[in-house]
Amino acid sequence: MQTVFQTIFQTIAVVARRQTPAIVDTVLAVERVLAKFGVAVVLEDMTAAFVGDASSPGLERRVLPREQLGDSQLIVVVGGDGSMLGVARDIAPHGVPVVGVNRGGLGFLAAVAPDQLAQQLQGILSGEYKIEDHFLLSGQVMRDGHCIEQCTALNDVVIHAGNMARMMEFELSVNGQFVYDQRSDGVIVASPTGSTAYALSAGGPIMHPALDAVAVVPMFPHTLTSRPLVVPGDSTLSIKVTRLTDSTPQASFDSQINVELALGDVVTIRKYHAPLRLLYPIGHSFYESCRSKLDWASRLGGQATEE
Amino acid sequence: MQTVFQTIFQTIAVVARRQTPAIVDTVLAVERVLAKFGVAVVLEDMTAAFVGDASSPGLERRVLPREQLGDSQLIVVVGGDGSMLGVARDIAPHGVPVVGVNRGGLGFLAAVAPDQLAQQLQGILSGEYKIEDHFLLSGQVMRDGHCIEQCTALNDVVIHAGNMARMMEFELSVNGQFVYDQRSDGVIVASPTGSTAYALSAGGPIMHPALDAVAVVPMFPHTLTSRPLVVPGDSTLSIKVTRLTDSTPQASFDSQINVELALGDVVTIRKYHAPLRLLYPIGHSFYESCRSKLDWASRLGGQATEE
Amino acid sequence: MQTVFQTIFQTIAVVARRQTPAIVDTVLAVERVLAKFGVAVVLEDMTAAFVGDASSPGLERRVLPREQLGDSQLIVVVGGDGSMLGVARDIAPHGVPVVGVNRGGLGFLAAVAPDQLAQQLQGILSGEYKIEDHFLLSGQVMRDGHCIEQCTALNDVVIHAGNMARMMEFELSVNGQFVYDQRSDGVIVASPTGSTAYALSAGGPIMHPALDAVAVVPMFPHTLTSRPLVVPGDSTLSIKVTRLTDSTPQASFDSQINVELALGDVVTIRKYHAPLRLLYPIGHSFYESCRSKLDWASRLGGQATEE
Amino acid sequence: MQTVFQTIFQTIAVVARRQTPAIVDTVLAVERVLAKFGVAVVLEDMTAAFVGDASSPGLERRVLPREQLGDSQLIVVVGGDGSMLGVARDIAPHGVPVVGVNRGGLGFLAAVAPDQLAQQLQGILSGEYKIEDHFLLSGQVMRDGHCIEQCTALNDVVIHAGNMARMMEFELSVNGQFVYDQRSDGVIVASPTGSTAYALSAGGPIMHPALDAVAVVPMFPHTLTSRPLVVPGDSTLSIKVTRLTDSTPQASFDSQINVELALGDVVTIRKYHAPLRLLYPIGHSFYESCRSKLDWASRLGGQATEE
Repeated sequence: MQTVFQTIFQTIAVVARRQTPAIVDTVLAVERVLAKFGVAVVLEDMTAAFVGDASSPGLERRVLPREQLGDSQLIVVVGGDGSMLGVARDIAPHGVPVVGVNRGGLGFLAAVAPDQLAQQLQGILSGEYKIEDHFLLSGQVMRDGHCIEQCTALNDVVIHAGNMARMMEFELSVNGQFVYDQRSDGVIVASPTGSTAYALSAGGPIMHPALDAVAVVPMFPHTLTSRPLVVPGDSTLSIKVTRLTDSTPQASFDSQINVELALGDVVTIRKYHAPLRLLYPIGHSFYESCRSKLDWASRLGGQATEE
Repeated sequence: MQTVFQTIFQTIAVVARRQTPAIVDTVLAVERVLAKFGVAVVLEDMTAAFVGDASSPGLERRVLPREQLGDSQLIVVVGGDGSMLGVARDIAPHGVPVVGVNRGGLGFLAAVAPDQLAQQLQGILSGEYKIEDHFLLSGQVMRDGHCIEQCTALNDVVIHAGNMARMMEFELSVNGQFVYDQRSDGVIVASPTGSTAYALSAGGPIMHPALDAVAVVPMFPHTLTSRPLVVPGDSTLSIKVTRLTDSTPQASFDSQINVELALGDVVTIRKYHAPLRLLYPIGHSFYESCRSKLDWASRLGGQATEE
Repeated sequence: MQTVFQTIFQTIAVVARRQTPAIVDTVLAVERVLAKFGVAVVLEDMTAAFVGDASSPGLERRVLPREQLGDSQLIVVVGGDGSMLGVARDIAPHGVPVVGVNRGGLGFLAAVAPDQLAQQLQGILSGEYKIEDHFLLSGQVMRDGHCIEQCTALNDVVIHAGNMARMMEFELSVNGQFVYDQRSDGVIVASPTGSTAYALSAGGPIMHPALDAVAVVPMFPHTLTSRPLVVPGDSTLSIKVTRLTDSTPQASFDSQINVELALGDVVTIRKYHAPLRLLYPIGHSFYESCRSKLDWASRLGGQATEE
Repeated sequence: MQTVFQTIFQTIAVVARRQTPAIVDTVLAVERVLAKFGVAVVLEDMTAAFVGDASSPGLERRVLPREQLGDSQLIVVVGGDGSMLGVARDIAPHGVPVVGVNRGGLGFLAAVAPDQLAQQLQGILSGEYKIEDHFLLSGQVMRDGHCIEQCTALNDVVIHAGNMARMMEFELSVNGQFVYDQRSDGVIVASPTGSTAYALSAGGPIMHPALDAVAVVPMFPHTLTSRPLVVPGDSTLSIKVTRLTDSTPQASFDSQINVELALGDVVTIRKYHAPLRLLYPIGHSFYESCRSKLDWASRLGGQATEE
């Protein structure tokens, strides 16, 4: 008797970013699972370029540029959380669901473990998955009243002094209300998704992905009274650069795209209209990820006191 | 020409908790404003007991016990945030709006400043106010499957070891999912309203009152990896007492009502169905309160570097 | 050919605190090593009481009360860090070196691992050890100018409000200079030894045991501007209770001895004249202990970013 | 009757860094005090260049380059803490005492307040001062076993990834003992003097200037388990760059001198042999400075709870 593989996804795109031999192997392993389901496979062109002649028997691939992947019904990303960030920004507007196979990072977003690839991916294709929508932040850089740059971020928009150990001054408003001005190295505006990334290193709280909220976490503020702030997800945050030192401040989107800022620039940040639609294997737990990937709330070895 | 005072509030109750001469003066000052509007005044019985014969000319008072204040259209609380907490727990089920005249605390909840009492209270009675709903937490103490105690809290439910410098162990679950177990002095579960109170001292984030979220902040955890957690407001949190030392752990509601816990008890916390409906003078800003009352994000005096 | 065991320690006392069967086994295992070296063994009377008839062949034990152990040349403590704290306070004045066999706690002080007991203890008796002097804190409770209580602590002196979620007010001076007054749950004054215990949970820095310094770490202070303070080891710290709430504040020494405080009491803390002289196996590293016992500075599993 | 002004300082140098009109005024005010005492005044050449023809009647100035100021008996620095840092590094080897007149920064080092200039400076010249030695850190950058750069710092040596929101990896050893390896934005090694500067923004403890200790404070570490570490002042710290990303890491001395680092470089940090000898007006208190300049341990406005 033979297992019949069926899936609702007719066309599936595969994207990989990190160009290592291990990645090629994983891409091929992914394709072997897809072949079982008889789906049409689309390989992103840059991915295809380094996968090269490596063949996946019985599989026909089309090769398309990233911007045409939006017609697929699912995108499989092979890489780490960093790859996921890039795909998120490109794919979210198309609404195509994404599943990540972890090759590198902590794997908060890329939830399929490489050593369980076949089983977990097969499960997802068979319909055993849960959907989690992760909202993105949209940032606009306003100069003299005009938007000079617009970008999205899945994790965070970081406004910083450019060089380390340099400071800047900015003014934060939320929904037009003045919140504070600050002298610091910068400030991190993080989505719940980003709360386990850079914002966490800076002392921000862990936010459950389903939370509709944005966190504002200062970076080395020149005051003892600064604390992380969490505001509703539908807020509009404005950060105005009010003083420079001899470095050039930047707005950094997911630490991947950087925009240079000038004195008086205002970066306006709000929730992006389209979320990243992530698929996770059934049984995935955010808290379990925090424990296993961040060692969150781990217990100390012994018993701290006796008696 | 004469100013005509009109208000939509026909019956207004007045409650004061702290029994000092200054409070009596403020109660009388409140009544003088109410008299101008010709409203029916209800004095809480305990408040009446210490206000005594002090008279408010031209005003007829009825005296009623706290539990009958729910028939008023507005409750004026004279006291500090501590008084507001008590009123909140008693009044929230009735849905009557509350305005606080600050006599003592930081005045996050009791927003009318005593030195602007006449003007601000008059404004509110004239309809110049904004409404802020502050949700309460509802906590149930479950023992052997039965609820042995139920209580609400506006700020926080704190599960702690009872005596200081004693520890306990507990297990936290959210929506049935295991989050972590912890050895610590206890844990603070705070509403946005409570985020500027005890939870803030323990390192929790500041949460905007409009945020639909609950923060979990550990108290002196015996691990380096603990961090505050923020979950959606519709979550159900369960905290199970898994180990005692020689002190008796407690569940503390707003630090005002304490329930002793036994090994195996589970405290279940979720959002209470009825919020506290708070009235604020027009122009009230949460961020301004944080800055002025907490010295939040204050700037250091000089310039930290020069060049 | 036969190994000849020799040691400079002629009389060795053995103390155990936790009364469990496993402890008896470890006491006997310790005695077996001591027997090889032909030393005179002194068993603390309370330890002897629960070890009972369990015999260590070829070994003659004397039984003495704790206060007479000071005539031994070495004291072996079987227990956890909690046992070590008690012995430290009792033994430090006598200057007798102490070695701990860990049965329970994290083992910062009790450095001999139970599974390497024979080898490590034998090494120490043969002269392969390093000495680390750990200073104690001496606290005096002054009331109306008189010292009403005096006690030492190896880890910390904690001044606290007594009940959790209660607050107190105190005034801190160092060497007669006013430092700050504070409203909080209390304050932890920690030695370097205590810096990896309760003070660490409260956000204090890790201090190397050889550091001549005392840390002052506030407990849930009602201010955003509080930070841990580290002062030279020869400082005299004074903490004056300036306001009570409805709980009775306490001075707690190593969380084991508690003294009730009254309004106006001053707790004066300085370095105790005699240190605890601890023996460690050769190769012991404080930093290694921090890493293995506290999971300090552990690395996250994967790679946080890729590029 | 006439006041006779006498001082032990025969030759006094004056240095100012920030080139603003206000600074010129303050330099002239300083010179007026010096004139009363009849001391020989030496103006640093760069200071002289922008003070220009502005005259101080009855005073003869010599102009000398910075490197020849070491023959003076006292150096008066007009500027902020930033100016003091530069002078400290240049002057410490000569052992000449320094007094700072605050024109800009927080004034931790530059302790003479401009509005009390005449009185406080006159007091110091009359012998009413206290001496505080502030040790410097000496950093050596070792590449392939050779020292390629050597520099001192009064506040801190910061090893960082160069660009913000970039990370690096390093390995920390103290006295040859491995402490930890870390992935982070960098690490701050601070003297007690620097503990109220950048290290404080990064969460380090406040250290009293008389403390013989060095603090190690991580910058946005990619782990939840990192904590500030305080080690004895005679320790040798080694920080080895073990992984780069696409930015060039740097060693930054007092945020003023930057040295680019390569993979495998080791920065070795120890106490510098000669301290900065600072003069303070009698009555100066470090704790008072912390309170007034950092708002440290300030009390919240009202009373947080009542009842």
